[in-house]
This record gives sequence, structure tokens and C-alpha cells, in this order.
Amino acid sequence: MNNFTFHNPTRIHFGRGQIAKISDEISKDSKVLITYGGGSIKKNGVYDQVLKSLEGYNIFEFSGIEPNPTYETLMQAVEIVRKEKIDFILAVGGGSVIDGTKFIAAAAPFEGEPWNIVVKGASFTQALPFGTILTLPATGSEMNCGSVITHKASGTKRGFMHPLVFPVFSVLDPETTFTLPRKQISNGVIDAFVHTTEQYLTYNADAPLQDRLAESILQTLIEEGPKGLQSPEDYNARSNIMWCATMALNGVIGAGVPQDWATHMIGHELTAKFNIDHAQTLAIILPSTLSLMRTAKQEKLLQYGERVWGITEGREEERIEAAIEKTREFFESLEIKTRLQDYNVSESDFDDLITKLEEQGMIQLGEHRDITLEKSREILRLSL
Amino acid sequence: MNNFTFHNPTRIHFGRGQIAKISDEISKDSKVLITYGGGSIKKNGVYDQVLKSLEGYNIFEFSGIEPNPTYETLMQAVEIVRKEKIDFILAVGGGSVIDGTKFIAAAAPFEGEPWNIVVKGASFTQALPFGTILTLPATGSEMNCGSVITHKASGTKRGFMHPLVFPVFSVLDPETTFTLPRKQISNGVIDAFVHTTEQYLTYNADAPLQDRLAESILQTLIEEGPKGLQSPEDYNARSNIMWCATMALNGVIGAGVPQDWATHMIGHELTAKFNIDHAQTLAIILPSTLSLMRTAKQEKLLQYGERVWGITEGREEERIEAAIEKTREFFESLEIKTRLQDYNVSESDFDDLITKLEEQGMIQLGEHRDITLEKSREILRLSL
Repeated sequence: MNNFTFHNPTRIHFGRGQIAKISDEISKDSKVLITYGGGSIKKNGVYDQVLKSLEGYNIFEFSGIEPNPTYETLMQAVEIVRKEKIDFILAVGGGSVIDGTKFIAAAAPFEGEPWNIVVKGASFTQALPFGTILTLPATGSEMNCGSVITHKASGTKRGFMHPLVFPVFSVLDPETTFTLPRKQISNGVIDAFVHTTEQYLTYNADAPLQDRLAESILQTLIEEGPKGLQSPEDYNARSNIMWCATMALNGVIGAGVPQDWATHMIGHELTAKFNIDHAQTLAIILPSTLSLMRTAKQEKLLQYGERVWGITEGREEERIEAAIEKTREFFESLEIKTRLQDYNVSESDFDDLITKLEEQGMIQLGEHRDITLEKSREILRLSL
Repeated sequence: MNNFTFHNPTRIHFGRGQIAKISDEISKDSKVLITYGGGSIKKNGVYDQVLKSLEGYNIFEFSGIEPNPTYETLMQAVEIVRKEKIDFILAVGGGSVIDGTKFIAAAAPFEGEPWNIVVKGASFTQALPFGTILTLPATGSEMNCGSVITHKASGTKRGFMHPLVFPVFSVLDPETTFTLPRKQISNGVIDAFVHTTEQYLTYNADAPLQDRLAESILQTLIEEGPKGLQSPEDYNARSNIMWCATMALNGVIGAGVPQDWATHMIGHELTAKFNIDHAQTLAIILPSTLSLMRTAKQEKLLQYGERVWGITEGREEERIEAAIEKTREFFESLEIKTRLQDYNVSESDFDDLITKLEEQGMIQLGEHRDITLEKSREILRLSL
């Protein structure tokens, strides 16, 4: 096992009716900014529950945080925080609203150009405290200190991590997911699945517990994902998907093991250029990454095939091929297409994508830092 | 899945050489009290590493915290904290030193009789901050807010939990375990194993991820425990045992599921009366608890047999019997005896033990609160 530091101070309130707990979490004299997206929380009753819980508080609102939240939009919220002297932010939504809120929390007290927090890793020593009410299980942002922001003007999508942007608390009420569109559940399951494989399908680091924890999440997503997709009001299935998504990226399974993240980095460019959903990009890129890097990942791919998919027959090469195929079939079974051509992306687009990766410094990806631009191009080719 | 709140703010520094990190964790102008046990840390080099890391700090020491730390001993440390105006405690040792330090941290600023914190759940609003350097993987105390203290005068062993006694940080360096006596490794593996079963072998609560996480810990302990016992300097095995023990009781696997703890409660009385090691009491009592409660635990025992021990043949009753037998054999393979007679306890001692359980209010144990005193007596009988 590799050396590691693990720290995750976010308090999780999980289950039915837990939104009522937020008034215990936020000081009564706070000026609270509620951040959210396109307004679905007004249709599904979550907004009403929040307002009821925050009766008597001094409340401000900022709506319109988009999927793949943009610097340009978020800076409008930063202005409100500064002008109104907001002292607590409550993010209500999915990963985009939460990621965006992390940026707002860090940017508001920041004295320089806040975009430098994202692209230059500019250091900061304070951020506004914030909590979240998660309505879309997927990104894990509700229990980690990472955030991915898009700079619209330059077409750049980049992430930052900082211990000051852990949510103080997050409420995970599976009932808030009952009204989600099907595609968002599919996307969420795939996002959590690929977060897990990025921390698991690398090389053996003598960390058998972490391996099994990762396999636990994958097996549970395979079992519960289709149920949650078919039966929107299956509370148990939705609960299990929600907790899997949080556990997939709260630091537990990644502690002390190598990590990959190449699929995410290549996927980010597909989203930035073609506006393909984040999870769709992962469903497209992961099978190709595994396929190209099968030699370096051989031991883990065999273990994955056996323990997660029950593949024990055939030569090693066949078992690896079968494991990758099972992965692709699982994504397709969730109604998410896994080929670039399904999204009207062709080989003629690759030059732009590769140039963009190069501009972002993404020239040595993967757990061995050996996914060069040439290999990224090959991964794209395998994804056609 | 049941509703739950999860919060664990302890920062973990895991791996070789991590003791050097403690000076980043403790403010330079702190008055630090180092607490430890019988002095093994002076023989194995840990004490020297700690002093080197804390060069320039104002340091005090309190040694002699015993296994099953006593109120009587700990109150001496409380006096030092009060008199010297200590503002940070560093616990160096195993679960007993850490549990004891939690009591010291809560008791020092407490205005009433500190024993009431343990037996009456007296509330408190402040505790000294403390960190730990774990040298014995077993109890999980390094990453939770629980503590078990023994009151020598009355022969009472009881626990308390409070969010203010989470360690600020814990250093887990597997090399500190290389010089441990064999029995302490065996005890540690069994302690972690039974912490896991207490949160897993109950009834199905539609929490498949938590089930698999628990199974992950059990499988890893079964695999790594014997290696770590046979080869004291097997860094990987010792690492995996250490991380399993922490993960077994940091709240992750118990979130949202029913819990049992009957084995622990009955075991505590065996320790209080006969001074049998905590883990030995668990190895004695667990198989009997599972055996007596096999109907209520049927579904989980079958799952445990199949997933953890690979038992798929035979009638259900036979598979359950085999799973319990495998558990006992595992404990015995670690050189820990699993029968009361091995420790010179006989049926004539049961009245005293049952009276003590009754005095402690332990009259409805188990996940269904249906382990009455009569059933506890039956569990003891099955353990002869």
C-alpha cells in the first residue's frame, strides 16, 4: 500500500426527511445564499422543503447554474456574495451546482482573479462555509473537495481541489431523485462506476482492502443501477445508487492506491467541445482506455473480470476482452451510447481535441503517466 | 437502508515515516502531554521518533496507561493536564492508550465528577484536542469517537461516545507494529473481525454496499491476518491489517444498517471479572452468539458463509453451522482459544456475570433487543 493522508470532514445526513436537519446546521443569524440550477427543485418539492426548514433566516437566491458550470455564470453569484455579505451558501442540486458553489465559496473572499484558483492553482486561505442538498447522485462532489469548472470564453474545462471546499454538511435524501429524468440516473450510475474504475483499474499495489471496496461499489451499481433506472420510486435502489456515488469519490477507495483519470481528462475535452454529457464521455472513453492499456492493467483487468463479472473461463486475453465488453454492454444497457459516432464526432475532430489536451498540459496521463498525446489519439480512434 | 448521519473528521497519515508529520499538526506553542502505556514505545524506537518530531515543544509525559485503562489511573493524568495547563495531548500506543486519552481529554475541562461522563452520559461541551500515533492495530479507536473505560473500584467496564473526542489526527505507521508480541497481532485481527461482524451479521436492511464493504474487511483479515502473524516484518500484511482495523470501526460499514454488539457487552464482563483479553472474549462469545441467534440472523449467516467462506453446499442449516465453525477455526488458527474452559471459567461463574450484566442495564442486547439475560446465560453456556 502506498503512503497516504485521508481527511474528510463532511457530515452526511442520509435518508427520508433529512432536509429538515439543515436548520440545525446553519447558524440562525446567517445570511444564506441558496444556489441552484434550472429550477427542477421548484417542481419536485425540494425548494419548498428547504424554505420551510430555513424559515426565519435571511435568504438570498442564485439560480441558473448550468450543467458544466461556467466561470462566467458563477462570477455573478460571487458578486452577490460580496455585495450582500453572505456568510453561508446552501447548494441545492447535483454535482454541477455543488461544484459551482465550491468555486463561489473560494472566489468570493479571493483578492486576485478567481479563475487563477482553477487554472493556476492559486493558493487561498479562506472560503465561505457551505452545505449541500444533493438531488442527483453522480459526481460525489457532496463529500469531497474537488470541483470542475468550465471557462466558456476559452472553452476550457478544468478542476481544482482544496481542503477548504469540503461541504460542511450534505443531505442525501433518495426521494429527491424520484422525479429525475431517466438519462440523469443512467449518467449518475456511469459517473460513479467510472470514478471507481479510475481508482481501481490500474496496477496491483498490495492494497487488497481497497480493491475489494472498489469491487463492492461496482457490483452494487451493476445490481442496483438497472433497478433504479426502471423504477424511479424504488427507494432502496435509489438509496443504494446514491450512497455508491458518494462512496465512489470521497477518498476512501483511493487511499493508498495508484489512480488513472485519463478517461476523465479525455472526456472533459469532448464535453468542452461538443457539449456531450460528462458521463456519456466516460462511457465512450473508458472501454477504449482499458483496451489500449490492457498490458499495463492486465492483472487488475483479470481480477475485475473475475470478481465483478464472474469471468473465469478462457485465456487471459479473452477474459480481458470479455471484461471490457461487459463494461460496454452495461453502459449500453443503461441506455447510454458508447461510440463517438453515436454523438456525431468523427476522426476529423481529433486534431482539435488533441491540441486542446496539449494546451491543458494533458500530455502524460494514466497511472504510469505514459498516455501520451499519441495514445490519447489512439483511444479516440478506438472510440469511433 | 436506514437513515443515518455520518461524520468522521479525523485526519489519517498512513505509512512509513509519517510520524514526522506530527509537528505540522500541533501548534508550536502548545504544551503537549504525551500519554502512553507500559513503555514498549521506548524499546521499539517510536518514542525517539516522536521526541525528534516534537523538538522545541514544551513536553510533558504520562505513562502507565494499562490495557483496559482505568478511571483511577487516568484521573492522575487529568490532574497533570489541569495543573500544567496542557493544551494538546498526544496518545502513543494502542486502543487502551487512545481510549484513555479520550477520557482524559473530556475529563480535564469537566466540572463535575468525570466518571459520570462514562456511566451517566453526562454532557460536556469542550474537550482538549488530541492526536494519536497508533502502534497496535485492533480497536479502531484511532478514527472514531468511542472509548471504553474500566472503573477498578467497582469492577465496571463501560463505554462512552462523543463527537468532541474524535482524534484531530492519527498516524498509522505499520512499521511500529513489527515488534509487537504475536498475541497482540492475533488479538488485533480478531478485534477488527468482530467489530465488522457486529455491524454485518444482523438482518437484511437493503444495504448491499455496506454488506459488501463489511465482507471486504472480513475477507482481507482472513487473507492477511495469518501472514501478518507469521511474518512480523511483512510490511504489506501489517499495512493491510492496520487499515482493516481502522475501517472496521470508523463508521463507514455501520452507516445505515442495524448493529448487534451483544458479543462485546457479554465479553466486557469477562474482561472485567477475569481479566481475559478483550479480543479473547470476543473469540469466545461470537461463535456462541451466532449459534444461539441463528434464526434471526439466518439470511446474513448464509450470505456470510457463501461470500466470505465460499460455503455453497449443503442444506441451509448445515451451511450456517459450517460458517460458524469456520469462524471459530479462524480464531483458533490465530492461536486464540475460543472456549471458556480454556480460560478456567466455569458455569459456577455465570451467576456473577449475569448479575453484572443486569446491573449495567444489559438486559436487551442484540439488533432486535431480544437477547435477554436468560439468552446471555445460554450464550455463556454454549461457550463453555
